[in-house]
Amino acid sequence: MEEMQTLFDHFNELMDKGAYIQLKQELNEENAADLAEYFEELSAEKQLFIFRLLTKDMAAEVFSYMDSDTQEHIVHSITDKEVRNIVDEMFLDDTVDFLEEAPANLVKKVLRNTDAETRALINRFLNYPENSAGSLMTIEFVKLRGGMTVDVAMKQIKRTGMDKETIYTCYVIDGQRKLIGVVPLRTLICAKDEELVQDLMEEDVVSVHTTDDQEEVAQIFKKYNWMALPVTDLENRLVGIITVDDIVDVIEQETTEDMEKMAALLPSDEEYLKTPVLKLARNRIVWLCVLMVSGTLSSLVISHYQTLLATVMALSSFITIITGTGGNAGSQASTMIIRGMALGEIEVKDVLRVVWKEVRVGALCGIALGAVNMVRMTFFSPSTGFLVDFTVSISMAAVVVLSKTIGCTLPILAKILKVDPAMMAGPLISTLVDAVALIIYFSIATVLLM
Amino acid sequence: MEEMQTLFDHFNELMDKGAYIQLKQELNEENAADLAEYFEELSAEKQLFIFRLLTKDMAAEVFSYMDSDTQEHIVHSITDKEVRNIVDEMFLDDTVDFLEEAPANLVKKVLRNTDAETRALINRFLNYPENSAGSLMTIEFVKLRGGMTVDVAMKQIKRTGMDKETIYTCYVIDGQRKLIGVVPLRTLICAKDEELVQDLMEEDVVSVHTTDDQEEVAQIFKKYNWMALPVTDLENRLVGIITVDDIVDVIEQETTEDMEKMAALLPSDEEYLKTPVLKLARNRIVWLCVLMVSGTLSSLVISHYQTLLATVMALSSFITIITGTGGNAGSQASTMIIRGMALGEIEVKDVLRVVWKEVRVGALCGIALGAVNMVRMTFFSPSTGFLVDFTVSISMAAVVVLSKTIGCTLPILAKILKVDPAMMAGPLISTLVDAVALIIYFSIATVLLM
Repeated sequence: MEEMQTLFDHFNELMDKGAYIQLKQELNEENAADLAEYFEELSAEKQLFIFRLLTKDMAAEVFSYMDSDTQEHIVHSITDKEVRNIVDEMFLDDTVDFLEEAPANLVKKVLRNTDAETRALINRFLNYPENSAGSLMTIEFVKLRGGMTVDVAMKQIKRTGMDKETIYTCYVIDGQRKLIGVVPLRTLICAKDEELVQDLMEEDVVSVHTTDDQEEVAQIFKKYNWMALPVTDLENRLVGIITVDDIVDVIEQETTEDMEKMAALLPSDEEYLKTPVLKLARNRIVWLCVLMVSGTLSSLVISHYQTLLATVMALSSFITIITGTGGNAGSQASTMIIRGMALGEIEVKDVLRVVWKEVRVGALCGIALGAVNMVRMTFFSPSTGFLVDFTVSISMAAVVVLSKTIGCTLPILAKILKVDPAMMAGPLISTLVDAVALIIYFSIATVLLM
Repeated sequence: MEEMQTLFDHFNELMDKGAYIQLKQELNEENAADLAEYFEELSAEKQLFIFRLLTKDMAAEVFSYMDSDTQEHIVHSITDKEVRNIVDEMFLDDTVDFLEEAPANLVKKVLRNTDAETRALINRFLNYPENSAGSLMTIEFVKLRGGMTVDVAMKQIKRTGMDKETIYTCYVIDGQRKLIGVVPLRTLICAKDEELVQDLMEEDVVSVHTTDDQEEVAQIFKKYNWMALPVTDLENRLVGIITVDDIVDVIEQETTEDMEKMAALLPSDEEYLKTPVLKLARNRIVWLCVLMVSGTLSSLVISHYQTLLATVMALSSFITIITGTGGNAGSQASTMIIRGMALGEIEVKDVLRVVWKEVRVGALCGIALGAVNMVRMTFFSPSTGFLVDFTVSISMAAVVVLSKTIGCTLPILAKILKVDPAMMAGPLISTLVDAVALIIYFSIATVLLM
């Protein structure tokens, strides 16, 4: 990425010495994604200046790669005519992506600069539920008829291809715009001119509905390794396609959400460095409070055993090591199950296999850990005496088995209850396991030491 | 996925009644990815039977979608001639994928059934470091010369297109096989027959080296939204390309690894349900032990304050709530930073901005949490008295600020030390925070209560 910086410095130099003609030429030869990165480094004023040096298509392409702050600043500052130029050149799905995040005044500014037909389309798109297939799809795709010869089809693609998001997968529809087949461009290219599209097309088409969730869409892409997927409405008419490059973003977004939930955070779409402190705090405080209050349970358990603790003072030193180990063991199990379910490798029906597996894994880990602990305590804290060492070790082993069982069961239970399994991760599991672990520890201690 | 089951049942029925001709025909019309799923449901014997009903190309395609167990069973059972047929039809990168996982006897069986040239290629591929661009790439791509007219180029694509992994991005090389440009098929299709490839191609090509890590490759795909990326050797000669569908798998694999590390697991490529209990236990025991032994720190802190605890017995009840809250607050911060770094949104140079942000977020969360705790303790555990309640609340606020600071600093520190930041997540942060949290708690208690 140092190369990038050199390039940006070069542009800045041209700008400073006023070599605008050379700058304009070089900018327009650059890669749009790189230029979008350059904009993020510029002051608001310079952004506008540089943007106006771009040709119409370049401006639209760079715009679609920008982050939403820069996009908003630009749309806010440019004239209506310039807005119209950008919207005309952009693919509809990129325009919709921008509008979904933009404040109301900018949405209005864009909408009043589009023709009636595009406006209607945009409004339909904005009405699709967030994260649905409809909100992801593009309408710029190649539609063919089954009766066309390859020659006619290729001529049509040649004529209209430059305005399509992809021409590499072509869709075949009937008179009612129903999807009847799909044919890769490769097949058309390698076929003879006079062959009919309907003889070449694959009729067994997998498609999704506009209202399907993006996570399902991503699963289909992963399974079939496709480049594009058709989207149909409730009457089974073909209304758009989703391309694999959008799916890469979906997968990232879904995983980030899972990770956030797993760390007891409210999920957020914004980049960390751009999220205001207040919002970050709000996203965290909810779960911190819930978990803290649930922690009362452990406090009650400890209070309940005050007499035991007062009699054998050494026991209190090992409270955190017992609860910590339980939390870690539980998090390991729950993470594997949550991820396995997200990837479709583990299903609800596997619950018994999973529990049986975790019990055995827990037993192995527990025995090993108990043994290590016994050695550690015997040699490094000789003052505690055999019985306390043994109590801690045996409790640890039991806690590991139990934590693994809880850790693997809760995500599956969540799935059954239609709650996101990602919530049943580290923090929540640890808090629940804490109380159980302490009960086990103190019960064993009561039997062995009182 | 219920549809799938119906289909599989239908195949099973045809098999049971011996309608092999119909079965053969229907199988060969099915989608290869779906058929691969069907194989996973079959007994070893039936897998082989069904596999032999497939045509040569279908067999190769289905094979490339199978999981490694099924692949190994099939290669193990079929004749040398059948192996040759599959390897001939498969794309080289799929063959290499299989060989990378396969046991030595099967690798030998495959290699002795390939011609010398393919064998040399396979061996070269197997020598690329795991997870490098070289191990991901495919060599079946379209190579053009700059001096070709569009007409000549299209004819060449038409002739050889069916054997290429993708024909939609074409690469232009010079006499030394050096990469000099890239041209999308779309541009060729929409151009005039007599135009020259070198006038149409994009000369400013982004490429990666065979030894580059797959994570870098994924970053480039995400940034540019491309469908394919060229791979060059150390002499800058074009040796292969990577297509976006392989990147989807890379992204998943990398995120799974991150999640595993974040949950104190040794990363593993295997599916959960297919991993033996012993291996699962081994992947978990290492970190459980390390963390348990590190937990000694907290034990020492508690031992150190035995007199304080004996004097104010109530303090021990809140040990877990203090360490738990610290762990949760720290995990939240570390998760956001780890994910932000993985997505390239946060870099090492942002460290001061991050810490300053977390200190403020921590202060807000800490004050809120302390206040909630004060109310909770005043009303629900009146026996503790104001001073203890206040001690716990103020400690909690301080612990949250400190945990957030530790949680955001360690992943960045890891990055500087070239350790994977994902290690600095929940479990490790919690263990470290535990000791610090207890010192804060007991110090405040000493001042206020002794």
